[in-house]
Formats: sequence, structure tokens, C-alpha cells
Amino acid sequence: MNSEFKPSDPDFRARIERSFAEQSVMQLIEASLAAVEPGRVVIELPYREDLCQQDGFIHAGISSTIMDSACGYAAFSLMPADARVLTIEFKINLLAPAAGEQFRAIGSVRKAGRSVSVADSELHAVGPDGDKLVATMVGTLMTVRPG
Amino acid sequence: MNSEFKPSDPDFRARIERSFAEQSVMQLIEASLAAVEPGRVVIELPYREDLCQQDGFIHAGISSTIMDSACGYAAFSLMPADARVLTIEFKINLLAPAAGEQFRAIGSVRKAGRSVSVADSELHAVGPDGDKLVATMVGTLMTVRPG
Amino acid sequence: MNSEFKPSDPDFRARIERSFAEQSVMQLIEASLAAVEPGRVVIELPYREDLCQQDGFIHAGISSTIMDSACGYAAFSLMPADARVLTIEFKINLLAPAAGEQFRAIGSVRKAGRSVSVADSELHAVGPDGDKLVATMVGTLMTVRPG
Amino acid sequence: MNSEFKPSDPDFRARIERSFAEQSVMQLIEASLAAVEPGRVVIELPYREDLCQQDGFIHAGISSTIMDSACGYAAFSLMPADARVLTIEFKINLLAPAAGEQFRAIGSVRKAGRSVSVADSELHAVGPDGDKLVATMVGTLMTVRPG
Repeated sequence: MNSEFKPSDPDFRARIERSFAEQSVMQLIEASLAAVEPGRVVIELPYREDLCQQDGFIHAGISSTIMDSACGYAAFSLMPADARVLTIEFKINLLAPAAGEQFRAIGSVRKAGRSVSVADSELHAVGPDGDKLVATMVGTLMTVRPG
Repeated sequence: MNSEFKPSDPDFRARIERSFAEQSVMQLIEASLAAVEPGRVVIELPYREDLCQQDGFIHAGISSTIMDSACGYAAFSLMPADARVLTIEFKINLLAPAAGEQFRAIGSVRKAGRSVSVADSELHAVGPDGDKLVATMVGTLMTVRPG
Repeated sequence: MNSEFKPSDPDFRARIERSFAEQSVMQLIEASLAAVEPGRVVIELPYREDLCQQDGFIHAGISSTIMDSACGYAAFSLMPADARVLTIEFKINLLAPAAGEQFRAIGSVRKAGRSVSVADSELHAVGPDGDKLVATMVGTLMTVRPG
Repeated sequence: MNSEFKPSDPDFRARIERSFAEQSVMQLIEASLAAVEPGRVVIELPYREDLCQQDGFIHAGISSTIMDSACGYAAFSLMPADARVLTIEFKINLLAPAAGEQFRAIGSVRKAGRSVSVADSELHAVGPDGDKLVATMVGTLMTVRPG
């Protein structure tokens, strides 16, 4: 999927892994990088009782945390080696309660522009009954160049 | 502000405090309710190094966590005593890096509908140089009635 | 596509064609219904010089007009015969200038809820060089029942 | 309002009037520039029966047309003389049916950045019963420089 994308930096995987390791919040919530491909990044999060809203479902802000980073790193995978990625804005639709044992945020680039990129993210909840789409995000990312 | 709003449930403050106390993620990140008025709710978050993205700023998902709940409880303050509040969607614009010592998410109702409400949230970062608007959110909330 | 959707009203096509014919703005801009399937609606618009912004591209508001109705009717196709559809909100990302001879807004339901539905829309510009994705939309639609 | 904004181009009014006159769609729908100030632009639209959706209210896409341009020109008022403005994305919330005799889209800059700006727009419907807020928009605008 997204095989139309050619990363300009062959070391994009190492660059993303390094940046992800520096996102301290990911350690707090125990999220991990599950896949890094050109224009596509997957972040996983196990359910934890201390990440919830009042009904025991994962809080939409925690869902946003992994969905935003999935969008951001999907875009970052196609950026030059010396660039930084900046989220300008995102919008999330909550389709169903985030109930499950494991959550997967799948970020995919829709448009990779020179300065502005657009990426989507889907949040899937995985439980005993299988896989369910529980939220969708679209985000706008900026390529920030040095100097 | 928002004095045009008349809460239908006189005990809305206790109801919101109870619900907030049940949002386990708020304890994890040490966020607290700073103000609860009809149609307006403020949530505060002190800076912590383990809530950050790769550059040491508060992660946009953590900003979303308190901004979404500020919107949600602002709408919830005007709902009937037996209703639940559900976020359908939100959109956030990140205007500046979330750098500071303290963060305040100020949620305000724009429209209180019978089933659908719209609320805004501003995120202010407070530091030695004063107060800065760093993000804005608009969210759509639903009134869920029992039965 | 979207074959998972079973319309509850077998006459959904006639219902949508009737409603579309009542959207006076569609006649003004000469947009037409190109396809109506369960959970999927396509609206076409030929380029016209009087629908443009300052650079001669179709104005984003005109793009929104056909994309919003494509989302709305996609959701409407799955609603009961006596329901009305109401757009609560939408968000559009403009990926490229809307340049071309013909425009196709393809609306698809992501989630068909009892009261709240979510639909996506893609805008394709068709010209001598082929087909290009120029905008994406996500919208939230409400089922309004009589009484 | 917005008096904090200092336009870098003293001739911003003439520049906006020229650009607005080139938006052919504004003539089609008979929209007009009602106010141009630093960081704030108002566009007016009289009700017309051929701008409507199926219930006789102004179509959300037509509302978007004047709200998007109000956001865009509000941002454009603060841009350098040789820049162009580009809408990257916007989101609209429809708070009430767009019913009335006259519509006013009031665009205001929230953040004027070097390359990315954020603006809000409110749509007011004016009728025999006074003035009513019927929609809100937030949009992201880009400053495009020559060369």
C-alpha cells in the first residue's frame, strides 16, 4: 500500500524510530511503533485503565495522541533527511467507543507536498470479537526546513 | 461570560466534578478542573516532561485531552440531569508550540441544542512571559438520554 | 463498493433524485447526479468561468457545494423513507487547484448510525491529462425523523 | 476589533477589492465586500431562491463560499503586497438553518503567521426577527510568495 511513494531519505525508518523514542508521552502510555513504510505508519497501544474517560473507554485525547503521531510520521517518512514535521491541524471523528484490548492507529499520506502534506489516520480497536474501526482523523502537516 | 446560559440541572457542578473524577486519564496526567460555570469549563494541566512530543513540547494529543473534556463538560453543564455527553468529532488548530509551565483549556458553548451542541476550546500556555494562546478547538457534542 | 450497506428504503434512488431536483443551487451551477448507490453518491459539475475564485479555479465553496451534497445523499440513501438528512458539520482539505473540464464529487458513507452518520467525499478534476484528486471532505450528517 | 494587527501593505484594501472583483462566483451569487479592515473582512449575500438546498435554505456550500473568502481575505489583508493567499483547509459547523433576507460572513484572523495563518468566520442571518448566528468556520490559509 502507498507503494506510489518514494522516500527521499533512504534512512527514514531510523529517523522515525529515533523521533518516536523521543516522544516521552509514548512511553507514558506504552504506545509502540508497529510498522514504518513509505507514507504509512502504524502505532499500537494496549488498553490500560488509566487512559480512560468516565465510561471506561480510551479517552479521545489519547486516541488523538497515537493517531496524530501516525499521521505525522507517515508524512515525515517522505520528507528530506534534514526536515522536521509539524502538525498544523487535525480533525477526528469518533465513530464508536474506543473499547478493546489493543488499539492500532494507521496513518497514511493522502498528499505529500513540498511544504504542506495531508494524511489520514484510522483507529482500530482489537478485541475478542475482532477488529473494529472506531475513529478517523485527517491532519495537515508541514515540512519545516532548517535555516 | 456565557451568562445567557441557564443550566437545566441546578446540580451541574457536582455532576461534572463526579464525571471528571471518573476520567482516569486526568489523574495520569495530573489535570484538574479549575472552573465550572454554565456553558464554560476550565481544565488546567501543569507541564510534565513525560507528556511531550520529540521537541519537548506538550503533545497535541495531550492538549486535545484537556481541550476535548473542556468542550464536553461545557456542553454537559447545560444538559439535563439524566443525560450523558458524547463527543462526535472535534478539530484542533495548533497555533504555536505548547511550551510553558501551566496550560489552561477554556471550553465555551457556542450552541446548546436539544441533541447536538457545539463548543469551542482555547488552550493557553502560561509561563514567565505571560499567557499565550497556543491552540483552538471546535467540537460537536451529543446529548445522550437514557432509555 | 460499499456493498455492505443495505438501504432500509428500497425507493432511495427516487427519493434522492427528488430531493436533488429541489436543490435550486444545483441548477444554478449545472451540477447533476451521476450515480446513486447504497451508501455512495456521485455528483458531477462541468467547469464554468462564473464559478471561480481569483485565479480561474473553481471556488472552494462551489467544490464544497457538490461534495457536501454527495456526502449528504450518500448518508440519505441509507435512511428510512420518512427521514430528512441534515449536515451538522464538514471539513475540507484542498489538495490541489480545482482545475479541469469536469469535476466529480464522490460521497461514501463511513459509518451509518441511527442518528449520526459520517461520510467522506473526494473531489476529482478530469481534464486532458486524466483524473486528479483535488480535495477531500469528511462530514457529519444527522437523521431527522418526523414528529 | 483586531486593532492589534498592522498590515504590512498599506494598500491592502485596494488589493482585496481587486481580487474580490476577480472572483467570478461572487458576481454569480451577488455577494459583495461590506468591510475590509486589518485582519477582518465582511462579505454580504442577499437571499436568493436559486442558492438553496431542498428546504429553501441557503446551501451550506454557498455559505462556505462567502465564509471561506471572508477568512481568506482577512488573512490576505495582513500579507505582503506581492503574496497570494491559498486556503489549505477549512471546517464549518452549521448551527441553524441559513434562513433570512441577508447573510453576513465575518472573517477574523486568529493567528497571522509568516507562512501559515488561521482565521475564523461567523455567518449571521439577518431577517425581520434580527440577527442570528447560523454557522461558524475555522480555516487555515497559506501565504504564497513569488519565485
